[in-house]
Amino acid sequence: MSLDEHWYTEAYEECGSAFSLRIKEKLHDETTPYQRIEIYATEKFGNLMTIDGLVMLTDRDNFVYHEMMSHPALFIHENPRKVVIIGGGDCGTLHEVLKHTEVEQAWQIEIDERVTRLSEQFFPALCQSNNDARAQLYFGDGIQWVKDAEPGSIDVIIIDSTDPVGPAEGLFSEPFYRDCERALSDSGILVQQSESPLYHMRIIAPMHKAMARAGFTDTKTLHFCQCSYPSGWWSATMARKGRSIDTFREQAVQQRRFETQYYNADIHRGAFATPEFMRRILDQ
Amino acid sequence: MSLDEHWYTEAYEECGSAFSLRIKEKLHDETTPYQRIEIYATEKFGNLMTIDGLVMLTDRDNFVYHEMMSHPALFIHENPRKVVIIGGGDCGTLHEVLKHTEVEQAWQIEIDERVTRLSEQFFPALCQSNNDARAQLYFGDGIQWVKDAEPGSIDVIIIDSTDPVGPAEGLFSEPFYRDCERALSDSGILVQQSESPLYHMRIIAPMHKAMARAGFTDTKTLHFCQCSYPSGWWSATMARKGRSIDTFREQAVQQRRFETQYYNADIHRGAFATPEFMRRILDQ
Repeated sequence: MSLDEHWYTEAYEECGSAFSLRIKEKLHDETTPYQRIEIYATEKFGNLMTIDGLVMLTDRDNFVYHEMMSHPALFIHENPRKVVIIGGGDCGTLHEVLKHTEVEQAWQIEIDERVTRLSEQFFPALCQSNNDARAQLYFGDGIQWVKDAEPGSIDVIIIDSTDPVGPAEGLFSEPFYRDCERALSDSGILVQQSESPLYHMRIIAPMHKAMARAGFTDTKTLHFCQCSYPSGWWSATMARKGRSIDTFREQAVQQRRFETQYYNADIHRGAFATPEFMRRILDQ
Repeated sequence: MSLDEHWYTEAYEECGSAFSLRIKEKLHDETTPYQRIEIYATEKFGNLMTIDGLVMLTDRDNFVYHEMMSHPALFIHENPRKVVIIGGGDCGTLHEVLKHTEVEQAWQIEIDERVTRLSEQFFPALCQSNNDARAQLYFGDGIQWVKDAEPGSIDVIIIDSTDPVGPAEGLFSEPFYRDCERALSDSGILVQQSESPLYHMRIIAPMHKAMARAGFTDTKTLHFCQCSYPSGWWSATMARKGRSIDTFREQAVQQRRFETQYYNADIHRGAFATPEFMRRILDQ
Protein backbone atom coordinates (compact mmCIF):
# COMPACT_ATOMS: atom_id res chain seq x y z
CA MET A 1 0.00 0.00 0.00
CA SER A 2 1.10 3.61 -0.27
CA LEU A 3 0.47 6.23 2.38
CA ASP A 4 -1.52 9.32 1.52
CA GLU A 5 -1.25 12.83 2.94
CA HIS A 6 -2.82 11.71 6.21
CA TRP A 7 0.50 10.17 7.26
CA TYR A 8 3.68 11.76 8.53
CA THR A 9 6.67 9.75 7.31
CA GLU A 10 10.29 9.84 8.36
CA ALA A 11 12.48 7.89 5.94
CA TYR A 12 15.92 6.70 7.05
CA GLU A 13 17.29 6.66 3.52
CA GLU A 14 20.70 5.22 4.35
CA CYS A 15 19.04 2.31 6.17
CA GLY A 16 16.29 1.78 3.59
CA SER A 17 13.43 1.94 6.10
CA ALA A 18 10.77 4.43 7.12
CA PHE A 19 8.37 4.98 10.01
CA SER A 20 5.03 6.73 9.64
CA LEU A 21 2.33 8.04 11.94
CA ARG A 22 -1.23 8.74 10.87
CA ILE A 23 -2.01 12.38 11.53
CA LYS A 24 -5.18 14.31 12.20
CA GLU A 25 -3.74 17.78 11.59
CA LYS A 26 -0.65 19.92 11.69
CA LEU A 27 -0.79 22.10 14.77
CA HIS A 28 2.29 24.25 14.31
CA ASP A 29 5.17 24.92 11.89
CA GLU A 30 7.98 27.27 12.73
CA THR A 31 11.51 27.90 11.56
CA THR A 32 13.76 29.16 14.35
CA PRO A 33 17.34 30.43 13.95
CA TYR A 34 18.40 26.82 14.62
CA GLN A 35 15.94 24.49 12.96
CA ARG A 36 12.41 23.83 11.71
CA ILE A 37 10.01 22.64 14.38
CA GLU A 38 6.68 21.05 13.43
CA ILE A 39 3.92 19.81 15.73
CA TYR A 40 1.22 17.39 14.59
CA ALA A 41 -1.81 15.82 16.24
CA THR A 42 -1.64 12.13 15.37
CA GLU A 43 -4.50 9.63 15.33
CA LYS A 44 -3.07 7.24 17.93
CA PHE A 45 0.21 8.64 19.27
CA GLY A 46 -1.06 11.94 20.71
CA ASN A 47 1.02 14.94 19.73
CA LEU A 48 4.17 14.60 17.66
CA MET A 49 7.11 17.01 17.47
CA THR A 50 9.56 16.87 14.60
CA ILE A 51 12.77 18.87 14.12
CA ASP A 52 14.09 19.25 10.59
CA GLY A 53 11.80 16.40 9.56
CA LEU A 54 12.99 13.94 12.22
CA VAL A 55 10.68 12.58 14.92
CA MET A 56 11.71 13.99 18.31
CA LEU A 57 8.90 12.66 20.46
CA THR A 58 5.29 11.60 20.67
CA ASP A 59 2.95 11.60 23.66
CA ARG A 60 2.51 7.85 23.27
CA ASP A 61 6.02 6.46 23.50
CA ASN A 62 8.30 9.16 24.97
CA PHE A 63 8.08 7.59 28.44
CA VAL A 64 10.57 4.86 27.58
CA TYR A 65 13.20 7.28 26.29
CA HIS A 66 12.87 9.85 29.06
CA GLU A 67 12.92 7.27 31.83
CA MET A 68 15.93 5.46 30.39
CA MET A 69 17.87 8.70 29.87
CA SER A 70 17.48 9.60 33.54
CA HIS A 71 16.74 6.84 36.08
CA PRO A 72 19.60 4.37 35.33
CA ALA A 73 22.24 7.12 35.74
CA LEU A 74 20.56 8.62 38.79
CA PHE A 75 20.23 5.26 40.56
CA ILE A 76 23.82 4.27 39.71
CA HIS A 77 25.19 7.48 41.22
CA GLU A 78 25.32 7.25 45.03
CA ASN A 79 24.11 10.80 45.63
CA PRO A 80 23.21 12.79 42.51
CA ARG A 81 22.74 16.34 43.77
CA LYS A 82 23.57 18.42 40.71
CA VAL A 83 22.35 17.19 37.33
CA VAL A 84 22.85 18.90 33.98
CA ILE A 85 20.86 18.07 30.85
CA ILE A 86 22.39 19.17 27.55
CA GLY A 87 19.60 19.56 25.01
CA GLY A 88 16.40 18.01 26.35
CA GLY A 89 14.36 21.05 25.38
CA ASP A 90 11.07 19.13 25.55
CA CYS A 91 11.65 18.98 29.34
CA GLY A 92 10.70 15.30 29.61
CA THR A 93 14.11 14.29 30.94
CA LEU A 94 14.05 17.21 33.38
CA HIS A 95 10.67 16.02 34.65
CA GLU A 96 12.05 12.52 35.33
CA VAL A 97 15.24 13.86 36.96
CA LEU A 98 13.26 16.02 39.36
CA LYS A 99 11.34 12.99 40.61
CA HIS A 100 14.54 12.21 42.54
CA THR A 101 14.31 14.09 45.84
CA GLU A 102 18.08 14.04 46.40
CA VAL A 103 18.57 16.21 43.31
CA GLU A 104 19.18 19.77 44.52
CA GLN A 105 19.72 21.47 41.15
CA ALA A 106 18.77 20.32 37.66
CA TRP A 107 20.04 22.48 34.82
CA GLN A 108 18.64 22.15 31.30
CA ILE A 109 20.94 23.71 28.69
CA GLU A 110 18.92 23.86 25.46
CA ILE A 111 20.17 25.83 22.51
CA ASP A 112 16.71 26.62 21.09
CA GLU A 113 14.26 28.19 23.54
CA ARG A 114 11.41 27.63 21.08
CA VAL A 115 11.63 23.85 21.62
CA THR A 116 10.82 24.39 25.28
CA ARG A 117 8.13 27.01 24.71
CA LEU A 118 6.37 24.77 22.18
CA SER A 119 6.64 21.81 24.57
CA GLU A 120 4.99 23.87 27.30
CA GLN A 121 2.15 24.46 24.85
CA PHE A 122 1.84 21.05 23.16
CA PHE A 123 3.39 18.59 25.68
CA PRO A 124 2.29 20.04 29.03
CA ALA A 125 2.69 16.68 30.81
CA LEU A 126 6.45 16.79 30.17
CA CYS A 127 6.75 20.37 31.44
CA GLN A 128 5.06 19.84 34.81
CA SER A 129 8.33 20.36 36.68
CA ASN A 130 9.55 23.45 34.83
CA ASN A 131 8.54 25.63 37.78
CA ASP A 132 10.15 23.37 40.36
CA ALA A 133 12.48 25.55 42.47
CA ARG A 134 15.35 23.16 41.64
CA ALA A 135 14.92 23.51 37.86
CA GLN A 136 17.22 25.90 36.00
CA LEU A 137 16.29 26.46 32.36
CA TYR A 138 19.16 28.04 30.45
CA PHE A 139 19.01 28.64 26.71
CA GLY A 140 22.39 28.59 25.05
CA ASP A 141 25.23 26.46 23.75
CA GLY A 142 25.74 23.28 25.80
CA ILE A 143 29.31 22.74 24.60
CA GLN A 144 30.38 26.18 25.83
CA TRP A 145 28.37 25.80 29.05
CA VAL A 146 30.19 22.59 29.96
CA LYS A 147 33.56 24.13 29.04
CA ASP A 148 32.81 27.00 31.44
CA ALA A 149 31.51 24.80 34.27
CA GLU A 150 33.52 24.66 37.48
CA PRO A 151 35.65 21.50 37.58
CA GLY A 152 34.15 18.70 39.66
CA SER A 153 30.88 20.56 40.11
CA ILE A 154 28.35 18.23 38.41
CA ASP A 155 27.27 14.72 39.47
CA VAL A 156 25.41 13.60 36.33
CA ILE A 157 25.47 15.03 32.79
CA ILE A 158 22.67 13.81 30.48
CA ILE A 159 23.14 14.53 26.79
CA ASP A 160 19.63 14.46 25.37
CA SER A 161 20.36 15.77 21.91
CA THR A 162 19.38 15.33 18.29
CA ASP A 163 21.42 13.07 15.99
CA PRO A 164 25.17 13.63 15.53
CA VAL A 165 24.77 15.78 12.44
CA GLY A 166 24.47 19.57 12.33
CA PRO A 167 24.31 21.45 15.66
CA ALA A 168 24.62 18.29 17.80
CA GLU A 169 27.74 16.94 16.06
CA GLY A 170 30.15 18.47 18.58
CA LEU A 171 28.34 16.64 21.40
CA PHE A 172 29.66 13.31 20.06
CA SER A 173 33.35 14.21 20.21
CA GLU A 174 36.34 13.54 22.44
CA PRO A 175 37.00 17.24 23.22
CA PHE A 176 33.44 17.59 24.54
CA TYR A 177 33.71 14.36 26.56
CA ARG A 178 36.97 15.71 28.02
CA ASP A 179 35.17 18.87 29.15
CA CYS A 180 32.40 16.73 30.65
CA GLU A 181 34.92 14.59 32.51
CA ARG A 182 36.52 17.71 33.95
CA ALA A 183 33.14 19.21 34.97
CA LEU A 184 32.01 15.99 36.69
CA SER A 185 32.63 15.27 40.35
CA ASP A 186 34.44 12.10 41.48
CA SER A 187 32.41 9.06 40.37
CA GLY A 188 30.32 11.37 38.16
CA ILE A 189 28.32 9.93 35.27
CA LEU A 190 27.82 11.02 31.68
CA VAL A 191 24.94 9.48 29.73
CA GLN A 192 24.20 10.26 26.11
CA GLN A 193 21.53 9.15 23.67
CA SER A 194 23.45 7.00 21.20
CA GLU A 195 21.19 6.10 18.27
CA SER A 196 20.20 2.61 17.09
CA PRO A 197 22.34 -0.48 17.81
CA LEU A 198 20.90 -2.05 14.64
CA TYR A 199 21.67 0.92 12.38
CA HIS A 200 24.43 2.94 14.02
CA MET A 201 27.23 0.79 15.46
CA ARG A 202 29.57 3.06 13.46
CA ILE A 203 28.50 5.81 15.88
CA ILE A 204 28.27 3.79 19.11
CA ALA A 205 31.62 2.00 18.88
CA PRO A 206 33.68 5.21 18.43
CA MET A 207 31.71 6.83 21.30
CA HIS A 208 33.03 4.19 23.71
CA LYS A 209 36.58 4.73 22.48
CA ALA A 210 36.32 8.54 22.64
CA MET A 211 34.86 8.42 26.15
CA ALA A 212 37.69 6.16 27.31
CA ARG A 213 40.30 8.44 25.73
CA ALA A 214 38.65 11.41 27.46
CA GLY A 215 39.52 9.81 30.79
CA PHE A 216 36.40 7.88 31.82
CA THR A 217 36.99 4.63 33.73
CA ASP A 218 34.01 2.58 32.52
CA THR A 219 31.61 2.83 29.58
CA LYS A 220 28.46 0.83 28.79
CA THR A 221 25.53 1.03 26.41
CA LEU A 222 21.96 0.48 27.59
CA HIS A 223 19.15 -0.57 25.28
CA PHE A 224 15.42 -0.02 24.94
CA CYS A 225 12.69 -0.29 22.33
CA GLN A 226 11.67 3.15 21.09
CA CYS A 227 8.85 2.79 18.61
CA SER A 228 9.11 6.17 16.89
CA TYR A 229 12.91 6.26 16.43
CA PRO A 230 14.76 4.63 13.51
CA SER A 231 14.60 0.80 13.70
CA GLY A 232 12.57 0.92 16.94
CA TRP A 233 15.70 -0.08 18.86
CA TRP A 234 17.46 2.72 20.69
CA SER A 235 20.33 3.16 23.10
CA ALA A 236 22.07 5.44 25.54
CA THR A 237 25.79 5.19 26.23
CA MET A 238 27.09 5.86 29.71
CA ALA A 239 30.58 6.75 30.93
CA ARG A 240 31.71 6.97 34.55
CA LYS A 241 34.60 8.68 36.23
CA GLY A 242 36.68 6.54 38.60
CA ARG A 243 34.17 3.72 39.13
CA SER A 244 32.28 0.91 37.48
CA ILE A 245 28.78 1.33 36.07
CA ASP A 246 27.81 -2.18 37.18
CA THR A 247 26.15 -1.54 40.53
CA PHE A 248 23.17 0.63 41.36
CA ARG A 249 21.10 1.59 44.39
CA GLU A 250 18.65 -1.24 43.94
CA GLN A 251 16.95 -0.77 47.30
CA ALA A 252 16.34 2.88 46.46
CA VAL A 253 14.74 1.79 43.17
CA GLN A 254 12.45 -0.61 45.02
CA GLN A 255 11.50 2.01 47.60
CA ARG A 256 11.18 4.99 45.26
CA ARG A 257 8.19 7.19 45.97
CA PHE A 258 7.47 8.10 42.37
CA GLU A 259 5.76 6.27 39.56
CA THR A 260 7.41 5.09 36.40
CA GLN A 261 5.78 3.56 33.35
CA TYR A 262 8.80 1.61 32.14
CA TYR A 263 11.76 1.68 34.53
CA ASN A 264 12.26 -0.66 37.48
CA ALA A 265 15.17 -2.65 38.94
CA ASP A 266 14.79 -5.58 36.53
CA ILE A 267 14.62 -3.22 33.56
CA HIS A 268 17.77 -1.47 34.85
CA ARG A 269 19.75 -4.70 34.93
CA GLY A 270 18.32 -5.99 31.66
CA ALA A 271 18.96 -2.80 29.70
CA PHE A 272 22.73 -3.20 30.02
CA ALA A 273 22.79 -6.65 28.38
CA THR A 274 24.99 -6.47 25.29
CA PRO A 275 23.91 -8.48 22.22
CA GLU A 276 26.55 -10.78 20.75
CA PHE A 277 27.04 -8.87 17.49
CA MET A 278 27.63 -5.69 19.47
CA ARG A 279 29.98 -7.32 21.97
CA ARG A 280 32.11 -8.54 19.07
CA ILE A 281 32.30 -5.02 17.59
CA LEU A 282 33.03 -3.34 20.95
CA ASP A 283 35.72 -5.92 21.80
CA GLN A 284 37.70 -5.04 18.67
CA MET B 1 7.55 13.20 2.68
CA SER B 2 5.50 10.56 0.93
CA LEU B 3 6.84 7.22 -0.19
CA ASP B 4 6.69 6.27 -3.83
CA GLU B 5 6.35 2.85 -5.42
CA HIS B 6 9.92 1.96 -4.45
CA TRP B 7 8.77 1.30 -0.89
CA TYR B 8 6.91 -1.61 0.63
CA THR B 9 4.67 -0.37 3.44
CA GLU B 10 2.83 -2.24 6.15
CA ALA B 11 0.35 0.01 7.94
CA TYR B 12 -0.94 -0.94 11.39
CA GLU B 13 -4.17 0.97 10.98
CA GLU B 14 -5.55 0.36 14.46
CA CYS B 15 -2.31 1.67 15.98
CA GLY B 16 -1.93 4.58 13.56
CA SER B 17 1.62 3.71 12.53
CA ALA B 18 3.37 2.16 9.55
CA PHE B 19 6.73 0.63 8.70
CA SER B 20 8.27 0.69 5.23
CA LEU B 21 11.23 -0.87 3.49
CA ARG B 22 12.77 0.46 0.30
CA ILE B 23 12.61 -2.24 -2.34
CA LYS B 24 14.65 -3.01 -5.42
CA GLU B 25 12.18 -5.44 -6.99
CA LYS B 26 9.45 -7.95 -6.35
CA LEU B 27 10.89 -11.44 -6.71
CA HIS B 28 7.78 -13.57 -6.27
CA ASP B 29 4.03 -13.34 -5.75
CA GLU B 30 1.90 -16.40 -5.12
CA THR B 31 -1.50 -17.17 -3.67
CA THR B 32 -1.60 -20.54 -1.97
CA PRO B 33 -4.72 -22.28 -0.60
CA TYR B 34 -3.92 -20.57 2.70
CA GLN B 35 -2.56 -17.11 1.98
CA ARG B 36 -0.78 -14.74 -0.37
CA ILE B 37 3.00 -14.89 -0.14
CA GLU B 38 5.18 -12.17 -1.64
CA ILE B 39 8.96 -11.93 -1.76
CA TYR B 40 10.84 -8.69 -2.38
CA ALA B 41 14.48 -7.75 -2.70
CA THR B 42 14.93 -4.69 -0.48
CA GLU B 43 17.66 -2.05 -0.73
CA LYS B 44 19.11 -2.57 2.76
CA PHE B 45 17.29 -5.44 4.48
CA GLY B 46 18.11 -8.25 2.07
CA ASN B 47 15.10 -10.30 1.06
CA LEU B 48 11.66 -9.69 2.56
CA MET B 49 8.77 -12.15 2.84
CA THR B 50 5.23 -10.92 3.44
CA ILE B 51 2.10 -12.99 4.04
CA ASP B 52 -1.24 -11.36 3.32
CA GLY B 53 0.53 -8.02 3.28
CA LEU B 54 2.22 -8.43 6.68
CA VAL B 55 6.00 -8.55 7.10
CA MET B 56 7.07 -12.05 8.12
CA LEU B 57 10.82 -11.68 7.98
CA THR B 58 13.79 -9.96 6.40
CA ASP B 59 17.35 -11.18 6.01
CA ARG B 60 18.58 -8.21 8.02
CA ASP B 61 16.73 -8.49 11.32
CA ASN B 62 15.27 -12.02 11.59
CA PHE B 63 18.19 -13.15 13.79
CA VAL B 64 16.77 -11.48 16.88
CA TYR B 65 13.36 -13.11 16.52
CA HIS B 66 14.60 -16.59 15.67
CA GLU B 67 17.18 -16.65 18.46
CA MET B 68 14.72 -15.40 21.05
CA MET B 69 12.04 -17.89 20.01
CA SER B 70 14.43 -20.78 20.56
CA HIS B 71 17.45 -20.31 22.85
CA PRO B 72 15.76 -19.01 26.04
CA ALA B 73 13.35 -21.98 26.13
CA LEU B 74 16.04 -24.51 25.21
CA PHE B 75 18.45 -23.24 27.86
CA ILE B 76 15.74 -23.12 30.53
CA HIS B 77 14.79 -26.74 29.91
CA GLU B 78 17.26 -29.12 31.59
CA ASN B 79 17.38 -31.57 28.71
CA PRO B 80 15.36 -30.64 25.61
CA ARG B 81 15.40 -33.76 23.47
CA LYS B 82 12.18 -33.44 21.48
CA VAL B 83 11.20 -30.00 20.21
CA VAL B 84 8.14 -29.14 18.14
CA ILE B 85 7.72 -25.90 16.19
CA ILE B 86 4.17 -24.97 15.22
CA GLY B 87 4.31 -22.71 12.17
CA GLY B 88 7.86 -21.49 11.61
CA GLY B 89 7.71 -22.36 7.91
CA ASP B 90 10.68 -20.13 7.10
CA CYS B 91 12.81 -22.68 9.02
CA GLY B 92 14.77 -20.02 10.91
CA THR B 93 13.60 -21.26 14.31
CA LEU B 94 14.33 -24.85 13.28
CA HIS B 95 17.87 -23.82 12.33
CA GLU B 96 18.44 -22.27 15.79
CA VAL B 97 16.88 -25.25 17.60
CA LEU B 98 19.17 -27.70 15.80
CA LYS B 99 22.24 -25.83 17.02
CA HIS B 100 21.53 -27.56 20.36
CA THR B 101 23.28 -30.94 20.23
CA GLU B 102 21.04 -32.44 22.93
CA VAL B 103 18.01 -32.07 20.64
CA GLU B 104 17.28 -35.51 19.18
CA GLN B 105 14.18 -34.65 17.15
CA ALA B 106 12.91 -31.27 15.94
CA TRP B 107 9.51 -31.28 14.29
CA GLN B 108 8.29 -28.33 12.25
CA ILE B 109 4.51 -28.38 11.74
CA GLU B 110 3.76 -25.76 9.10
CA ILE B 111 0.33 -25.58 7.49
CA ASP B 112 1.56 -24.13 4.19
CA GLU B 113 4.36 -26.04 2.49
CA ARG B 114 4.89 -23.17 0.06
CA VAL B 115 6.25 -20.97 2.88
CA THR B 116 9.03 -23.51 3.38
CA ARG B 117 9.71 -24.09 -0.30
CA LEU B 118 9.97 -20.35 -0.94
CA SER B 119 12.25 -19.95 2.07
CA GLU B 120 14.53 -22.64 0.69
CA GLN B 121 14.70 -20.58 -2.49
CA PHE B 122 14.87 -17.02 -1.11
CA PHE B 123 16.22 -17.45 2.46
CA PRO B 124 18.73 -20.30 2.08
CA ALA B 125 20.65 -19.27 5.22
CA LEU B 126 17.60 -20.11 7.35
CA CYS B 127 17.12 -23.49 5.70
CA GLN B 128 20.66 -24.79 6.23
CA SER B 129 19.47 -27.39 8.73
CA ASN B 130 16.46 -28.72 6.80
CA ASN B 131 18.43 -31.81 5.85
CA ASP B 132 19.71 -32.45 9.36
CA ALA B 133 18.79 -36.06 10.25
CA ARG B 134 17.01 -34.78 13.37
CA ALA B 135 14.72 -32.42 11.40
CA GLN B 136 11.17 -33.56 10.65
CA LEU B 137 9.26 -31.28 8.28
CA TYR B 138 5.53 -31.98 8.41
CA PHE B 139 3.02 -29.92 6.49
CA GLY B 140 -0.40 -29.83 8.11
CA ASP B 141 -2.53 -28.39 10.87
CA GLY B 142 -0.57 -27.69 14.05
CA ILE B 143 -3.64 -27.65 16.28
CA GLN B 144 -4.63 -31.16 15.20
CA TRP B 145 -1.02 -32.39 15.37
CA VAL B 146 -0.68 -31.33 19.00
CA LYS B 147 -4.09 -32.83 19.82
CA ASP B 148 -2.92 -36.14 18.37
CA ALA B 149 0.51 -36.07 20.05
CA GLU B 150 1.29 -38.71 22.66
CA PRO B 151 0.83 -37.25 26.16
CA GLY B 152 4.10 -36.23 27.83
CA SER B 153 6.08 -36.78 24.63
CA ILE B 154 7.44 -33.28 23.86
CA ASP B 155 9.95 -31.22 25.85
CA VAL B 156 9.55 -27.83 24.18
CA ILE B 157 6.76 -26.50 21.95
CA ILE B 158 7.54 -23.29 20.03
CA ILE B 159 4.59 -21.50 18.46
CA ASP B 160 6.10 -19.44 15.68
CA SER B 161 2.92 -18.30 13.99
CA THR B 162 1.37 -15.31 12.28
CA ASP B 163 -0.83 -12.88 14.21
CA PRO B 164 -3.90 -14.14 16.10
CA VAL B 165 -6.30 -13.48 13.24
CA GLY B 166 -7.31 -15.91 10.51
CA PRO B 167 -5.61 -19.34 10.47
CA ALA B 168 -3.46 -18.67 13.56
CA GLU B 169 -6.33 -17.57 15.80
CA GLY B 170 -6.83 -21.01 17.33
CA LEU B 171 -3.19 -21.04 18.43
CA PHE B 172 -3.94 -18.28 20.96
CA SER B 173 -6.66 -20.15 22.84
CA GLU B 174 -7.07 -22.07 26.08
CA PRO B 175 -8.15 -25.35 24.38
CA PHE B 176 -4.95 -25.34 22.33
CA TYR B 177 -2.83 -24.52 25.40
CA ARG B 178 -4.53 -27.41 27.18
CA ASP B 179 -3.52 -29.78 24.37
CA CYS B 180 0.03 -28.43 24.53
CA GLU B 181 0.15 -28.93 28.31
CA ARG B 182 -0.95 -32.54 27.84
CA ALA B 183 1.57 -33.19 25.06
CA LEU B 184 4.47 -31.73 27.06
CA SER B 185 6.66 -33.84 29.33
CA ASP B 186 7.14 -32.95 33.01
CA SER B 187 8.74 -29.51 33.26
CA GLY B 188 8.04 -29.01 29.54
CA ILE B 189 7.99 -25.51 28.07
CA LEU B 190 5.64 -23.76 25.67
CA VAL B 191 6.83 -20.52 24.07
CA GLN B 192 4.73 -18.46 21.70
CA GLN B 193 5.33 -15.25 19.75
CA SER B 194 3.05 -12.75 21.48
CA GLU B 195 2.98 -9.53 19.49
CA SER B 196 3.96 -6.05 20.68
CA PRO B 197 3.92 -5.06 24.37
CA LEU B 198 3.32 -1.45 23.26
CA TYR B 199 0.39 -2.24 20.98
CA HIS B 200 -1.07 -5.58 22.07
CA MET B 201 -1.39 -5.90 25.83
CA ARG B 202 -5.01 -6.86 25.12
CA ILE B 203 -3.55 -10.02 23.54
CA ILE B 204 -0.65 -10.67 25.93
CA ALA B 205 -2.55 -10.32 29.21
CA PRO B 206 -5.26 -12.88 28.28
CA MET B 207 -2.55 -15.27 27.02
CA HIS B 208 -1.07 -15.43 30.53
CA LYS B 209 -4.49 -16.11 32.02
CA ALA B 210 -5.38 -18.76 29.43
CA MET B 211 -2.03 -20.51 29.87
CA ALA B 212 -2.52 -20.61 33.65
CA ARG B 213 -6.06 -21.93 33.25
CA ALA B 214 -4.73 -24.61 30.90
CA GLY B 215 -2.65 -25.96 33.78
CA PHE B 216 0.76 -24.34 33.38
CA THR B 217 2.64 -23.54 36.62
CA ASP B 218 4.52 -20.41 35.56
CA THR B 219 4.17 -17.91 32.70
CA LYS B 220 6.46 -15.05 31.68
CA THR B 221 6.88 -12.71 28.72
CA LEU B 222 10.26 -12.00 27.20
CA HIS B 223 11.03 -8.88 25.18
CA PHE B 224 13.21 -7.90 22.26
CA CYS B 225 13.46 -5.15 19.65
CA GLN B 226 12.28 -6.39 16.27
CA CYS B 227 12.74 -3.65 13.71
CA SER B 228 10.37 -4.93 11.03
CA TYR B 229 7.42 -5.86 13.28
CA PRO B 230 4.75 -3.40 14.45
CA SER B 231 6.17 -0.84 16.91
CA GLY B 232 9.65 -2.41 16.72
CA TRP B 233 9.05 -3.94 20.17
CA TRP B 234 8.16 -7.62 20.17
CA SER B 235 7.62 -10.40 22.66
CA ALA B 236 7.32 -14.11 23.25
CA THR B 237 5.29 -15.54 26.10
CA MET B 238 6.45 -18.67 27.84
CA ALA B 239 4.55 -21.18 29.98
CA ARG B 240 6.08 -24.02 31.96
CA LYS B 241 4.66 -27.22 33.37
CA GLY B 242 5.43 -27.93 37.02
CA ARG B 243 8.37 -25.57 37.44
CA SER B 244 9.48 -21.97 37.42
CA ILE B 245 10.83 -20.23 34.32
CA ASP B 246 13.32 -18.22 36.40
CA THR B 247 16.45 -20.34 36.17
CA PHE B 248 18.38 -21.48 33.14
CA ARG B 249 21.51 -23.49 32.30
CA GLU B 250 23.77 -20.48 32.38
CA GLN B 251 27.00 -22.48 32.24
CA ALA B 252 25.75 -24.24 29.12
CA VAL B 253 25.04 -20.86 27.54
CA GLN B 254 28.57 -19.67 28.33
CA GLN B 255 30.09 -22.89 26.97
CA ARG B 256 27.87 -23.29 23.93
CA ARG B 257 29.72 -24.36 20.81
CA PHE B 258 27.56 -22.43 18.37
CA GLU B 259 27.50 -18.78 17.38
CA THR B 260 24.65 -16.42 18.03
CA GLN B 261 24.26 -12.86 16.80
CA TYR B 262 21.98 -11.66 19.59
CA TYR B 263 21.47 -14.18 22.39
CA ASN B 264 23.79 -14.68 25.37
CA ALA B 265 23.34 -15.16 29.13
CA ASP B 266 22.94 -11.44 29.88
CA ILE B 267 20.39 -11.08 27.10
CA HIS B 268 18.53 -14.10 28.50
CA ARG B 269 18.19 -12.55 31.94
CA GLY B 270 17.46 -9.09 30.61
CA ALA B 271 14.74 -10.19 28.20
CA PHE B 272 12.46 -11.30 31.04
CA ALA B 273 12.42 -7.87 32.72
CA THR B 274 8.83 -6.64 32.86
CA PRO B 275 8.20 -2.92 32.32
CA GLU B 276 6.13 -1.19 35.00
CA PHE B 277 3.07 -0.52 32.83
CA MET B 278 2.97 -4.19 31.88
CA ARG B 279 3.47 -5.43 35.43
CA ARG B 280 0.49 -3.35 36.51
CA ILE B 281 -1.69 -4.86 33.77
CA LEU B 282 -0.53 -8.44 34.42
CA ASP B 283 -1.04 -8.06 38.19
CA GLN B 284 -4.71 -7.21 37.70
